[in-house]
Amino acid sequence: MKGESIVVTGVGQTKYGKLNGQSLSSLMYEAASNTLLDACVTRSQIDALVISNLASNRFNNQQNLTALCTDVIGLSGIPAFRSGASSASGAAAIQQAVMMVKSGIFENVLVIGVELMNQVPTDVSTSILANSTHPWEQEQGITIPALAAMLTRLNMLHNGLTREQLALVAVKNHKNALLNPLAHFHHKTISFEDVMNSSIIADPLRLFDFSPRSDGAAAVIISSEKCVKKSCEQPIYIKGIGAATDIFAYMNRENLMSLDATRLAADRAFKMSEKTQKQIDILEVHDAFTPLELVNLEDMGFFKRGSAGKALEDGVTERNGQLPVNVSGGLKAKGHPVGATGIGQVLELTLQLRNEAGKRQVTGVDTGLAHAIGGFGNNVFVTILSRS
Amino acid sequence: MKGESIVVTGVGQTKYGKLNGQSLSSLMYEAASNTLLDACVTRSQIDALVISNLASNRFNNQQNLTALCTDVIGLSGIPAFRSGASSASGAAAIQQAVMMVKSGIFENVLVIGVELMNQVPTDVSTSILANSTHPWEQEQGITIPALAAMLTRLNMLHNGLTREQLALVAVKNHKNALLNPLAHFHHKTISFEDVMNSSIIADPLRLFDFSPRSDGAAAVIISSEKCVKKSCEQPIYIKGIGAATDIFAYMNRENLMSLDATRLAADRAFKMSEKTQKQIDILEVHDAFTPLELVNLEDMGFFKRGSAGKALEDGVTERNGQLPVNVSGGLKAKGHPVGATGIGQVLELTLQLRNEAGKRQVTGVDTGLAHAIGGFGNNVFVTILSRS
Repeated sequence: MKGESIVVTGVGQTKYGKLNGQSLSSLMYEAASNTLLDACVTRSQIDALVISNLASNRFNNQQNLTALCTDVIGLSGIPAFRSGASSASGAAAIQQAVMMVKSGIFENVLVIGVELMNQVPTDVSTSILANSTHPWEQEQGITIPALAAMLTRLNMLHNGLTREQLALVAVKNHKNALLNPLAHFHHKTISFEDVMNSSIIADPLRLFDFSPRSDGAAAVIISSEKCVKKSCEQPIYIKGIGAATDIFAYMNRENLMSLDATRLAADRAFKMSEKTQKQIDILEVHDAFTPLELVNLEDMGFFKRGSAGKALEDGVTERNGQLPVNVSGGLKAKGHPVGATGIGQVLELTLQLRNEAGKRQVTGVDTGLAHAIGGFGNNVFVTILSRS
Repeated sequence: MKGESIVVTGVGQTKYGKLNGQSLSSLMYEAASNTLLDACVTRSQIDALVISNLASNRFNNQQNLTALCTDVIGLSGIPAFRSGASSASGAAAIQQAVMMVKSGIFENVLVIGVELMNQVPTDVSTSILANSTHPWEQEQGITIPALAAMLTRLNMLHNGLTREQLALVAVKNHKNALLNPLAHFHHKTISFEDVMNSSIIADPLRLFDFSPRSDGAAAVIISSEKCVKKSCEQPIYIKGIGAATDIFAYMNRENLMSLDATRLAADRAFKMSEKTQKQIDILEVHDAFTPLELVNLEDMGFFKRGSAGKALEDGVTERNGQLPVNVSGGLKAKGHPVGATGIGQVLELTLQLRNEAGKRQVTGVDTGLAHAIGGFGNNVFVTILSRS
């Protein structure tokens, strides 16, 4: 990234899971408080807010989240913006904050993502989530899991992807979550057989191929390096951001085998960061469905087409492998509180790069990449972070 | 604004009104097409999008607006962000775009705002709009019009505001809308008596004190001046942006007589622009309710407390007055398609500063100010534009 360096100066989150008894306010308060406790900047240095959320106006009857959030965290008065990019809203919010600081107008921007989606019945939240597909797809009753099933079938037919490899993604990410005390499935081990025998949702995808519906909040502070030079011992640098959209309806795309927006967003982030795939030590990849982890790793150029599954079988993407993927547990097992997810990914990488990730710390990591998808590959955001 | 100059290089909108038979797609398409026809940059130079909208997931069952919009306008692939700040979302989107360009990462950002709110029954849209108040206010059944009525009463009691002055705001803005062919109430003259005899909504506010529920879209292109120097004959400069939040629940604020966030946002915009109130030739002010035009003019320092009503009576804020306010017709009579409104204000000022506003052109205007409110004074955005 040319010019002024942009750094992460604080991170914090709540537990992810079904959080009965919580409110939007309590979740935002906890994530913000934890972030300020962690941060090397103080509350009074925060000069703007970006809030990320999918659908609080439907889950929680509240659409004025900028107002609610500044109020709850005791920062009424500061400018506040809201970001939205479907399930990639958190990642979009971080990129917005990066540009706000890089513009020179703000110095320390607090980014908070929140989702509280378990207070409505499952059929209601299903219909809310279905509103992320193209109107023509909605008319046909096509959901995002159904689109993912189609992409999976094509990769099974043409790229050697196997049903067993999908199960291994779930098993790996659940295993990782056992070491993450804030994960939705911190206590839930699952076996290969559990996945293979779980009920079919959209053939060939089964229940345990999907991320859960999680509540939770996550926050980071994005700062201008020069403003924090004296106070911050271990800022983590945002070296590159990249974003891309794709043709909305899956059926209208030329490429049905993978996600062009992932490739394009990663290309842009790599270019800005002047890094290459070989320099990435750790990744958080959008695995709302198990096939996405594998296909997106290929889209971003980490493995040749059709070979990510083999790498997984060989342990390459395990926590102690050559290229650890979703050490946090991923969306699959850490959880997917939609508005918070992309922020939680950057939080995980920040902790890992600081060497503060506790039991799940990966040794010797210098550079990480976070990848988030909005819709079905409609809107992808890639962020590259580094220790220096 | 220090450093790189930021300019408006294209504007376009649809008609505002009850637009039966339209869709989100058709409205965004029309606003974007008109903007590209107007612009001194080409479609291929647009390198990012910001979309603004209040509640398409409730009005139109569609929450993936970034995907829908890039698709519809033929720009799939470019990065796309979504802004939200309740009824000030459009103004927030413009400020986000300004910072995106000022960061050096993007050169020409298309900003589109859209709202299609008349396809759900009135009681449904009322309940959707009510979700912009504090949870405690919602519990009590307090709506934004009710809060506006309380602020109005206090100003009547303590600041000399009269019921008649409120009516004059409506009459003035409807008169202005007669000259704006794209206004919701382009053909509707209203008299002082019409307002005074209209039904009471929240005493002392009556039906004609309120803006209508409009459908519509508006767009602008925000560019880096140095990137368009050769191609643009008449760029309009964004000289300052200012934003501020306030304590969410009205009852918790120390000041119940006016809107602190308006004062703060204006202060910040004036400071950045190095302009003063005396240099502003024309204003678009958030007049979703008639008292807001008067109180906010005072909050921004254009008139002393309690004297904006008198200035209105004296014709100061008429189209041919010393300080024309809401020449477009304002939210009151041009209309209030929520996500588009703040963008439409900047569009109006751009046309006026270019001397391209047709029959409603104000002569000799050099500098303008746009003011937008989200919620009940929760989140205010002020933008100052100038010919040079």
